[in-house]
Amino acid sequence: MDARAHRPRVVVVGGGFGGLAAAHALDGADVDVLVLDARNHHCFQPLLYQAATAALSSADIAWPIRHVLRRQRNATVLMANVTGVDPIARRVATTAGDFAFDWLVLATGSTHSYFGHASWEAEAPSLKTVEDAVGIRSRLLAAFERAEAEAANGERGDRLAFAIVGGGPTGVELAGAIAELARRTLPREFRRSDPSRARILLLEAGPRLLPSFQKALADDAERRLARMGVEIRTGAPVEDVSRGGLTVGGERIEVDGAILWAAGVRASPAAAWTGAACDRSGRARVAPDLSVPGAPNVFIVGDAALAVGSDGVETPGLAAAAKQMGRYVGQTIRARCEGRAAPPPFRYRDYGALATIGRNAAVVSIGRLQLTGFPGWLVWSVAHIYFLIGLRSRFLIAANWAWSYLTDQRGARLIMGGADAVGRPAPRRRGLAEADRSHAS
Amino acid sequence: MDARAHRPRVVVVGGGFGGLAAAHALDGADVDVLVLDARNHHCFQPLLYQAATAALSSADIAWPIRHVLRRQRNATVLMANVTGVDPIARRVATTAGDFAFDWLVLATGSTHSYFGHASWEAEAPSLKTVEDAVGIRSRLLAAFERAEAEAANGERGDRLAFAIVGGGPTGVELAGAIAELARRTLPREFRRSDPSRARILLLEAGPRLLPSFQKALADDAERRLARMGVEIRTGAPVEDVSRGGLTVGGERIEVDGAILWAAGVRASPAAAWTGAACDRSGRARVAPDLSVPGAPNVFIVGDAALAVGSDGVETPGLAAAAKQMGRYVGQTIRARCEGRAAPPPFRYRDYGALATIGRNAAVVSIGRLQLTGFPGWLVWSVAHIYFLIGLRSRFLIAANWAWSYLTDQRGARLIMGGADAVGRPAPRRRGLAEADRSHAS
Repeated sequence: MDARAHRPRVVVVGGGFGGLAAAHALDGADVDVLVLDARNHHCFQPLLYQAATAALSSADIAWPIRHVLRRQRNATVLMANVTGVDPIARRVATTAGDFAFDWLVLATGSTHSYFGHASWEAEAPSLKTVEDAVGIRSRLLAAFERAEAEAANGERGDRLAFAIVGGGPTGVELAGAIAELARRTLPREFRRSDPSRARILLLEAGPRLLPSFQKALADDAERRLARMGVEIRTGAPVEDVSRGGLTVGGERIEVDGAILWAAGVRASPAAAWTGAACDRSGRARVAPDLSVPGAPNVFIVGDAALAVGSDGVETPGLAAAAKQMGRYVGQTIRARCEGRAAPPPFRYRDYGALATIGRNAAVVSIGRLQLTGFPGWLVWSVAHIYFLIGLRSRFLIAANWAWSYLTDQRGARLIMGGADAVGRPAPRRRGLAEADRSHAS
Repeated sequence: MDARAHRPRVVVVGGGFGGLAAAHALDGADVDVLVLDARNHHCFQPLLYQAATAALSSADIAWPIRHVLRRQRNATVLMANVTGVDPIARRVATTAGDFAFDWLVLATGSTHSYFGHASWEAEAPSLKTVEDAVGIRSRLLAAFERAEAEAANGERGDRLAFAIVGGGPTGVELAGAIAELARRTLPREFRRSDPSRARILLLEAGPRLLPSFQKALADDAERRLARMGVEIRTGAPVEDVSRGGLTVGGERIEVDGAILWAAGVRASPAAAWTGAACDRSGRARVAPDLSVPGAPNVFIVGDAALAVGSDGVETPGLAAAAKQMGRYVGQTIRARCEGRAAPPPFRYRDYGALATIGRNAAVVSIGRLQLTGFPGWLVWSVAHIYFLIGLRSRFLIAANWAWSYLTDQRGARLIMGGADAVGRPAPRRRGLAEADRSHAS
């Protein structure tokens, strides 16, 4: 027991790609690792858009963190919200109690940002968590249900409209997946309305889609999306979002289906907790070894960190980058605990970037190799299935995909919450009821 | 268009076993079928307990009703809450508008009953819907997470306790599945607490478990559950349920894990809508052809109906019975629309009853054949996989089960809602906070 009291304790906050990589790198080391996360599951974020568009179910893309770490005997997992960090006293405050640490790894990721327009969130949800995916899935499917009910009542003339704000990988993937849901999966099952006529708008503030990809790939993605009937507007910053629509370039666009937000990201409060300097999006500026300047035992990895490599390259906010940073910090802590020299400063290795466009096309950039279309999709599928953590999921997702691919069906088309969640058909004649309400207020 | 105006319209309320069977029986008939359901999905209720105990995910046991009916060209599906029925004017009022009918089939099922103790529901949820299953799963898993956090803080001495109220098939299946979750799936993944020590109580008001089965089968189930460490109390009606515990026979039992309610069932308001006479649990007394006395064009099938066959046998509240009733009514409507004689009065054909006990045992009663243990489980598995509606699910559930069986893992262990849903560790010293609250009230 006494020996144990002297074992260094490493606290890892966050069970995403960065946190898990840090914990894994400490497997077998003579330390106690405590992994804290507000959720009980690790979420494979690159596939969240598939859960949000009913292709995969939540359980296919998320696994209990304690299951992922079950074989790592020096790791304990607790589900808790971190409420603060004291880098001097070396304590983390959480909803499950306070914990002392010798080394701290903050891998708390990022959340969506509405650039100061908090009220937009209710109308235009973002996709960051499994709960978000379940909510967006219900919203998308409920829109088609509502249109069918309105058509059955002879109330509907317009086309159902969806808008995705943000033309990065998430926006592109969502737009492609919604286009396929509307054009391929659903039409056979509706009798009074025609899901395939749905309008799908993809809005990007910058001059082109996929700004982090080469222009040729972005152009290919744009052509393919257009062929799937996605209306793309670039140079179109959203000026307002309100109930039932949004404003772009002074023009109000009615969106009765759903508005999804894939435009902004903001780092979690790791910088605020540690007192580190941060950039405009809240990322903490870290030292070359990813530690917090002035707190050498505290590290920040993943989306919460702004790390500039010795080559002057800024580490991007990608799952692969978070993994590399987490592994690096785990190795650093291990080396220092074992009295060895710490590794040289962190440098991000770019293994490429991928984004899918619908069911059998993707853009892939791996060094000088650029793939589009079906070859791109094949690389994307293999890479994702390979990197999925759980063996079970790897097998079942492959089965699921094979099935969806062959049948155009989607396996997880559940609306949670019942008819009240769908809402009543929009009243076409407003008149009295609306007038009454405005009198009352 | 004129011809269409004269086509009889059949409205089916409820997309469960009874409603779907009625709709299917009208496939190809010269009628318009409108299926209304408050949810967009049909739920395979016999497997709900597996979703509630993290063995299957929601999407494995539920499919969009419109997907199930996609090939039936005369069927339209709308997601709507029915708010009332006018049997004279032949109209159904719903949240998606009013609909006229020539024939009406009410297949609205049953919901849980707390025998007048509405406040018990918040502490002891029931299992009737996919949402219920997701909620119960989160509650069960969160209890183990809480115990781990408390143990990490040195706050926990007691064993975690769960209680299931009701010893029918649902209670027996839940108790067995929770015992396996605690004793087999989770232990390897917890470091500070020991899930396998969890206390699992199964309480039954009557003299024995599984009253609808023969005594020999019930005894076998009881022995097997006891061997899995389930404490069974028969002749133990619950007198009170409140935060953190329940009272049985004057004894207060602390239950810090979760209390689940599998004791009472109440029919949905089909009887009230139609003005039919009903029994104590709200089931409408229907005529020998399952129509409402005095309203020959309105039928009630499934759990909402009290049907007594020509042989004097009461039709039980089982999925198989609902299916038979639905098919019978569909055939009756079809015969009458086609000018043929209606079928003879409804008679329930008993094809048996099944209940699983954990992962590889079941009790099965098929006529004179009685099976227990592994042979029972094999029959149960084959029967369930066979009767699952979606081919996709049939394949994926089989894969899922094979995987769980081989590895003791469970695929859907997600807690929805984050750490706040789990709650803080229970305060051990109550004192002040409690006192303050009682002053305030």
